[in-house]
Amino acid sequence: MSLLAVGSVAFDDLETPSGIRDNILGGSASYFSLSASRFTPVQVVAVVGEDFGPDQYKVFEGRPIDFGGLVRLPGLSFHWKGRYGADLNEARTLETHLNVFGGFKPDLPEAFRTSPYLFLGNIDPTLQLEVVQQMTVRPKWIALDTMNFWIDGAREPLLQVLREIDILLVNEAEARSLTGERNLLKAYARIRTLGPRILVVKRGEYGMLLFTQDLVFAAPAFPLEEVSDPTGAGDTFAGGFLGYLAAAGNLDNVTLKRAALYGTVMASFTVQAFGTERLQALTEGEYLSRAEAFEKMIHIG
Amino acid sequence: MSLLAVGSVAFDDLETPSGIRDNILGGSASYFSLSASRFTPVQVVAVVGEDFGPDQYKVFEGRPIDFGGLVRLPGLSFHWKGRYGADLNEARTLETHLNVFGGFKPDLPEAFRTSPYLFLGNIDPTLQLEVVQQMTVRPKWIALDTMNFWIDGAREPLLQVLREIDILLVNEAEARSLTGERNLLKAYARIRTLGPRILVVKRGEYGMLLFTQDLVFAAPAFPLEEVSDPTGAGDTFAGGFLGYLAAAGNLDNVTLKRAALYGTVMASFTVQAFGTERLQALTEGEYLSRAEAFEKMIHIG
Repeated sequence: MSLLAVGSVAFDDLETPSGIRDNILGGSASYFSLSASRFTPVQVVAVVGEDFGPDQYKVFEGRPIDFGGLVRLPGLSFHWKGRYGADLNEARTLETHLNVFGGFKPDLPEAFRTSPYLFLGNIDPTLQLEVVQQMTVRPKWIALDTMNFWIDGAREPLLQVLREIDILLVNEAEARSLTGERNLLKAYARIRTLGPRILVVKRGEYGMLLFTQDLVFAAPAFPLEEVSDPTGAGDTFAGGFLGYLAAAGNLDNVTLKRAALYGTVMASFTVQAFGTERLQALTEGEYLSRAEAFEKMIHIG
Repeated sequence: MSLLAVGSVAFDDLETPSGIRDNILGGSASYFSLSASRFTPVQVVAVVGEDFGPDQYKVFEGRPIDFGGLVRLPGLSFHWKGRYGADLNEARTLETHLNVFGGFKPDLPEAFRTSPYLFLGNIDPTLQLEVVQQMTVRPKWIALDTMNFWIDGAREPLLQVLREIDILLVNEAEARSLTGERNLLKAYARIRTLGPRILVVKRGEYGMLLFTQDLVFAAPAFPLEEVSDPTGAGDTFAGGFLGYLAAAGNLDNVTLKRAALYGTVMASFTVQAFGTERLQALTEGEYLSRAEAFEKMIHIG
């Protein structure tokens, strides 16, 4: 069943201890759709500039990704420049050029307005709310990603859209600043009162935590010998997690755990190369066999 | 089968966001033996001062803990004063008084020299090596804990004792500074060339990693609503982990994973109260039922 994703498509300049890349494809919707489309058809709503051309379209070709909601405007695409030091858990933003993304007003194609599953990528919560309001049928679930920039600077609209959603994906610092609770069990209890009934806390190299009313699940990250570029790991996780959930069609605890496993495995590929390179080249056999190895790894036996 | 533990017995002054405690029982051998003795008989070699009296002995009474190697000397016991801020992962040392511990020269009772399992707590590596040399029968396995103070300041004797041991327990920063490798898979490969064939990396609230020649296992910490005092969590983990291994009598991968589960669960109790309070009051039913809940939590199903 179709999963509608609203987010950013961007070009990134990246510096990590493994190297430097300029002008490579990035943005939450890129990572998300490449990851989620392994499990379920994805519909993308995003905006790009004239620098987004055939080379970029080609990345998404031959996959169940519907670009019917990708608007191409005069000007340049969103551009981000960031640097990672030895501690790959934290990026330092060097430059942000919103470009055409600065005027982004999501306008869903008619065919997208009845999608059964909706992912609101990390954009202005006012826009996230507008997307929800454009849906003519309430999706079976709505998932949302956000960040401290909106938690601190657009708290009211964020609280408003949170009331409409089912699944919140944030990192530890975001869960804490949203709720004022340092302890994540308490943060989840608080988040439940704000709307979302499912919370995913992303912890980078330490894995993730998943909270539902009657479940706490924790999974480590997949251990890797080399991490080249952590950019997009969270969006790739979200894609695998939500893509799997959309394909499964339910939110049972076992399904949620299995979705977390696939999200974790997909993210582990993303970080092994720069940008979306590894995700593009990934075969089904590769991610299925890593998922099996990962499940064996965390299983006590 | 008996597990011989060499380490410190101390008094601690602790400040955490949950409160302040002065002069409470601490030290690696205290936490370790209270935890390990749930699974196997423990023999303790340590030194205390005259301030260690009936109140302290009582804590260990009625448990399979042999204090035949506890030496009581004129003077005061090792005393540590530390403070934790909102980030409970890091203690700030305010005062360290070695007292009688400064002249600690482990001299194993005859009956301890044939123990089949040996844990060398975090003390001067020269003393750790002397303990190994006092064993008249080479233990089936030897485990060792150390810290950056020795890695940086006593590297040669540390490398010497590492050649004699099977299981190394350290935290992430220690694994990195010992090997010069940031990546933990690479750090393990390097550590194997130094002696130990099994590596446990303790990650505090993020759980632990376990490496053997053909296994990588990762487990999260047990999620808690309140952490009162993280002091002793690592030693409690080591006690549960090694106590379980000694009781099982083998180092199979499944046994190692199960040992990690029990170590994690024991540590989760320690941090719920100050010092050894919670560990003292702990019932078998409590830790067995938390172990079951934890196993269910990390199992995909």
